[in-house]
Amino acid sequence: MDLKTVVRSIPDYPKPGILFRDVTTLFQDAAALKQLTDDLVKSLEGKQVDLVVGPEARGFVVGATLAYALGAGLVLARKPGKLPCESLRYEYALEYGTDSLEIHVGAIKAGQKVVVVDDLLATGGTCLATIKLVEKMGGEVVGARFAIELAEECNGRETLKDYDVYSTIVY
Amino acid sequence: MDLKTVVRSIPDYPKPGILFRDVTTLFQDAAALKQLTDDLVKSLEGKQVDLVVGPEARGFVVGATLAYALGAGLVLARKPGKLPCESLRYEYALEYGTDSLEIHVGAIKAGQKVVVVDDLLATGGTCLATIKLVEKMGGEVVGARFAIELAEECNGRETLKDYDVYSTIVY
Repeated sequence: MDLKTVVRSIPDYPKPGILFRDVTTLFQDAAALKQLTDDLVKSLEGKQVDLVVGPEARGFVVGATLAYALGAGLVLARKPGKLPCESLRYEYALEYGTDSLEIHVGAIKAGQKVVVVDDLLATGGTCLATIKLVEKMGGEVVGARFAIELAEECNGRETLKDYDVYSTIVY
Repeated sequence: MDLKTVVRSIPDYPKPGILFRDVTTLFQDAAALKQLTDDLVKSLEGKQVDLVVGPEARGFVVGATLAYALGAGLVLARKPGKLPCESLRYEYALEYGTDSLEIHVGAIKAGQKVVVVDDLLATGGTCLATIKLVEKMGGEVVGARFAIELAEECNGRETLKDYDVYSTIVY
């Protein structure tokens, strides 16, 4: 299946001039969810993966199916204040202001092989923040994986140039 | 594996007297995540499942692995204002105040068989709200599934008494 046929495009969302790619219509299509997951698994063939890390919240979906399909564990990178135990925080710049992500202390052990996964690669800022957190904990990032990449509009590849990046669907 | 060994218990969180069951330590254990998912799949043997619906945010994790393992689609029940397209909202009572969940209009088609999945069954309020949304859209709820159930402290089974409920781990 051409997975672009199940991604919904929403003009002028969240603001005028932006064409938003809505991945929820892909998630709700059983065959598409399976094809996406299996394609991401294939892109990691030959790599050892101990943990998948997904940033809140749609990263939890792609992260969870990928972790299960790989036989890896899943670590959540959450918005501040959402995790119940001691966490490490990483603050990163947005277009206006800053945002932060947190991972539980001890969730990643030194030397573990980690794939960072999200639904969308745009500027790459969220993914890079997640990578930095993983590395602070001693994890080794073996790749970054995405359902959708906005290659025409954004330059996330440049942000993530030191990492092995793959996206199933590229616009 | 006894999955209780990988659930972290946090005393006095989020407030004094509450023993919080932290499922993130289960998610990050590859064998445990697989065992949990496969146990939930087994609990649905003989049932047709077209869609899994998970409420934000930890419900996305259990929902996603279950959807993938079942060969079903995943529909997200999100906090208000998070979905990019027209959505149906359901408001429900909390101990103090109210909360709401939304599902995209059209995400569930009339007659589709749906399992509602979350990480934790406590009072059952969030799950019942999700079920009501699914039913408003014409979906048929064939079951509610949970990673963890707080049977001693809460009475979620009573809230969900009209539905087929199963939890992998029961405290």
